[in-house]
Amino acid sequence: MNRPLIFITNDDSLHAKGIAALVEAARPFGEIVVIAPDKPQSGMGHAITINHPLRLQKATIFHDIEAYACSGTPVDCVKLGVYEVLHRKPDLVLSGINHGANSSTNVLYSGTMSAAVEGAMEHIPSIGFSYCDYDAEADFTAAQWVASQLIPKVLKEGLPLGVCLNVNIPKCKIEELKGIEVCRQAYAFWEDRFDKRLDQFGKPYYWLTGTFDSREEATDTDLHYLDQGYATVVPTQFDLTAHQSIQHLKTILS
Amino acid sequence: MNRPLIFITNDDSLHAKGIAALVEAARPFGEIVVIAPDKPQSGMGHAITINHPLRLQKATIFHDIEAYACSGTPVDCVKLGVYEVLHRKPDLVLSGINHGANSSTNVLYSGTMSAAVEGAMEHIPSIGFSYCDYDAEADFTAAQWVASQLIPKVLKEGLPLGVCLNVNIPKCKIEELKGIEVCRQAYAFWEDRFDKRLDQFGKPYYWLTGTFDSREEATDTDLHYLDQGYATVVPTQFDLTAHQSIQHLKTILS
Repeated sequence: MNRPLIFITNDDSLHAKGIAALVEAARPFGEIVVIAPDKPQSGMGHAITINHPLRLQKATIFHDIEAYACSGTPVDCVKLGVYEVLHRKPDLVLSGINHGANSSTNVLYSGTMSAAVEGAMEHIPSIGFSYCDYDAEADFTAAQWVASQLIPKVLKEGLPLGVCLNVNIPKCKIEELKGIEVCRQAYAFWEDRFDKRLDQFGKPYYWLTGTFDSREEATDTDLHYLDQGYATVVPTQFDLTAHQSIQHLKTILS
Repeated sequence: MNRPLIFITNDDSLHAKGIAALVEAARPFGEIVVIAPDKPQSGMGHAITINHPLRLQKATIFHDIEAYACSGTPVDCVKLGVYEVLHRKPDLVLSGINHGANSSTNVLYSGTMSAAVEGAMEHIPSIGFSYCDYDAEADFTAAQWVASQLIPKVLKEGLPLGVCLNVNIPKCKIEELKGIEVCRQAYAFWEDRFDKRLDQFGKPYYWLTGTFDSREEATDTDLHYLDQGYATVVPTQFDLTAHQSIQHLKTILS
């Protein structure tokens, strides 16, 4: 029997510590092919590259594992993987392990999670992993353990059609992790701010910054469980229709 | 009484014909401020610019209307608009009119629609408009008419919290338009293909291409109504949680 084919990507680039941690977590469960961005692509959301050509370069970074650096976005990596490199659908798409949280509405901006959503759009069981530590030298041991728990379960059970998993792991030692909770995306937002500076010609430029602001006290959300020391699993879909609003809008727009 | 403040952006850039059509459609209904990308940003999805500084340049393109060209993505434009230029929330965010459809799952890749989703995340009533004609010289008369119908209704009635509108208008003459239908996002996907070429050094590069493939026959979808000659309105949300899968996943992942 063939071993499962596992496709791995991320948004922090092929050179990030997090993707190496994910490759190691996945290694016991199948044959692995990696295509990851050749430079950081954080915050790229579901962007695809249509106005520039894409480049793909073979990489020896993981020694015995087939790997490529891609000039595009995480979603480009998934598309190139399925349609140009593998020429078939892998059994599992994994993305991450991201350096930093992708809980709550951060899922919208996250290149890591958009790669998993793209996998779901290809009807491939897909999981995005994010560790709540932005440090380039973060210790991924706890996140790696969570990945090693979830990967075989999803390979065995599959996922509902059109649904991928958004997995976040709190910054902690493995022995401090309280467990893994399935829950919903918290209703919380960035309070943005721009750091305005002047360049050498006196012209302004802006850096996007801000603080993340939780506006709800509910206890069934990813933010709540992360605060309590649990890893969180949010089933995440690409049907953006607000079905509950269709009737109301038929009334007010008629 | 102050006139409503209407913020307008798009993803085809400040120089596209579609945004000029939207400015004209919105003009009777309020005071307008425009911030749009300085170059095409189609397919940028919900990308934000975090690894480069952003530039903002005042533009005279719309004569009497305050307008800026932004070096970033459509979502950057909304964030800069709210937090740096307006210093308050506008009463309405409009995005478009996009050159080309953003129906079905194209909503995920669309910079036009991601700007509207970002508006909803700021709790501002927001609408993205797309006309099903990619031509730079498309005739936006029918699309403009749809916008002029929906803008005053949304200004008066508001929208449900967390919901924006994805409006698509079929390519047609205004007298051919059958009406406006509120419906759901169709379950349809790109069958991707890469056009592989060799550069002057014999190295390969890839252009993303493909065909859009509808996999369902349902009659309550945006693709169905567009085919029938209706403009479509899909209420679109940023809560990506697949709530219906939480219980099932608790079982299979435990």
